[in-house]
Amino acid sequence: MRGIRFSEAAEIVRFHSSDGRTERVEDVVSAEQPLEIRVRGQSVAITMRTPGHDRELAAGFALSEGLIDEPSQLLEVDHCRREEAKHPENIVNLYLDAAAPCDLEKLSRHVFASSSCGICGKASLKAIRNLWPPVGSGFRIAAAQLLSLPRHLRRAQAEFQRTGGLHAAALFDSDGGIVCVREDVGRHNAVDKVIGRSFLNGDFPLEGRLLLVSGRASFEIMQKALAGRLPFVAAVSAPSSLAVEFAKENRQTLVGFLRPSGFNIYSSPERIQASSISS
Amino acid sequence: MRGIRFSEAAEIVRFHSSDGRTERVEDVVSAEQPLEIRVRGQSVAITMRTPGHDRELAAGFALSEGLIDEPSQLLEVDHCRREEAKHPENIVNLYLDAAAPCDLEKLSRHVFASSSCGICGKASLKAIRNLWPPVGSGFRIAAAQLLSLPRHLRRAQAEFQRTGGLHAAALFDSDGGIVCVREDVGRHNAVDKVIGRSFLNGDFPLEGRLLLVSGRASFEIMQKALAGRLPFVAAVSAPSSLAVEFAKENRQTLVGFLRPSGFNIYSSPERIQASSISS
Repeated sequence: MRGIRFSEAAEIVRFHSSDGRTERVEDVVSAEQPLEIRVRGQSVAITMRTPGHDRELAAGFALSEGLIDEPSQLLEVDHCRREEAKHPENIVNLYLDAAAPCDLEKLSRHVFASSSCGICGKASLKAIRNLWPPVGSGFRIAAAQLLSLPRHLRRAQAEFQRTGGLHAAALFDSDGGIVCVREDVGRHNAVDKVIGRSFLNGDFPLEGRLLLVSGRASFEIMQKALAGRLPFVAAVSAPSSLAVEFAKENRQTLVGFLRPSGFNIYSSPERIQASSISS
Repeated sequence: MRGIRFSEAAEIVRFHSSDGRTERVEDVVSAEQPLEIRVRGQSVAITMRTPGHDRELAAGFALSEGLIDEPSQLLEVDHCRREEAKHPENIVNLYLDAAAPCDLEKLSRHVFASSSCGICGKASLKAIRNLWPPVGSGFRIAAAQLLSLPRHLRRAQAEFQRTGGLHAAALFDSDGGIVCVREDVGRHNAVDKVIGRSFLNGDFPLEGRLLLVSGRASFEIMQKALAGRLPFVAAVSAPSSLAVEFAKENRQTLVGFLRPSGFNIYSSPERIQASSISS
């Protein structure tokens, strides 16, 4: 892992409004570095990410962008080893089986580019529909367990407590047990990392898991969850309209504003066990 | 503007943890729809955004991605008018002057793709250095004014208070007066919108303005600010390491954790007027 730093020291000036005092202090900020992902020698993406767990990030990216759809298609994923590379720690190569559905041409058009003059949320939903079917998992979780998840996540976020600057994504089982947590300056990266980690470990598809994100739930988070076959996405903050529409279309349970006082269920409430939830 | 909706109604189930009660309620979620940006008939980007202010978003994108560097190079920006377009409201065409530095080939490589096997934060910084020089603005703001900005921003965020799901970006003058606020499901989009709005209005370069973002400050936020020639970026939350490095390199003032109790200054403190700040 060549001395990865999740955070870096920074000499800052701190201003205190109580007395107008300033002081020079040594602080810590979240590390951010570009990661280049290559397939067959071609650069397919550059993402600004928190260094660490790069193989997981690249594997999750490959899965959620539809380059691969099962573990056997990913032959190897590793950092660049070319001697002339100045920063091999910021380049990951994906080696795919010939059977992988990988379409680099399509990827370079950002997956959702339409060939006709007409694009809308429905078109994006349709493009996805052709890639992955809706989830049919019998996953269930009790409301009381669901309420406890943000607390477990915060406890696992040691790094977040140091810098205050990272998004988190976590996988839980149906008993509310934490399976994996990853953090990143980019929230999509944090999701790619937890899904990619499961993929690399052979814990796939993720039909028996729940994805919790520390922030908002967007279309892209739901799409990545579907690629991982996750039946349940919970967000500490708000979902977008397209996230809700996507969740309904794909029979994913979507919960938002998961807070101690309660939560909102936007789709498929039947996966939550609470005496009085009518579906 | 063809009936733009910033938010959409959603029928949800609300779970109350105090008594385990659930109820079906009508809620509101932030609208999210894809926007396709086209230059010379070619699709150059598809971004998931909150509908509205699309011309500003496209103009800001063109500026911050280096397709144009001054207002005269943007001849026109408008929604698609082709009759056969199913969703012309989700497509914006940019019409550029032949003198525009627009390099579509380079853009499609995501601006920062390196041609050699070696990429790092420094390389990204170097790529930017060739596009825009550091800011040399004499902009100054008093610490007391700075502390008041998040309050002004929240007051201006009517939409946020409805859905809880949007990122905000705002421009302020050196007296702490609010010039423009935009919100979006994507934080980069909110920044592109405020910069693009100024660009379209002829209020450019933005050397006399401060950019406030409701969340974190990343490399890309700093890069967009530099493209807009903004000398000062303040964030309510944390900056990343590369944001700090970028700010120092380009002599931008970067403030993080801007809260009632105080704030952190990561670079160029001389633009903040407080009796005791040593630079």
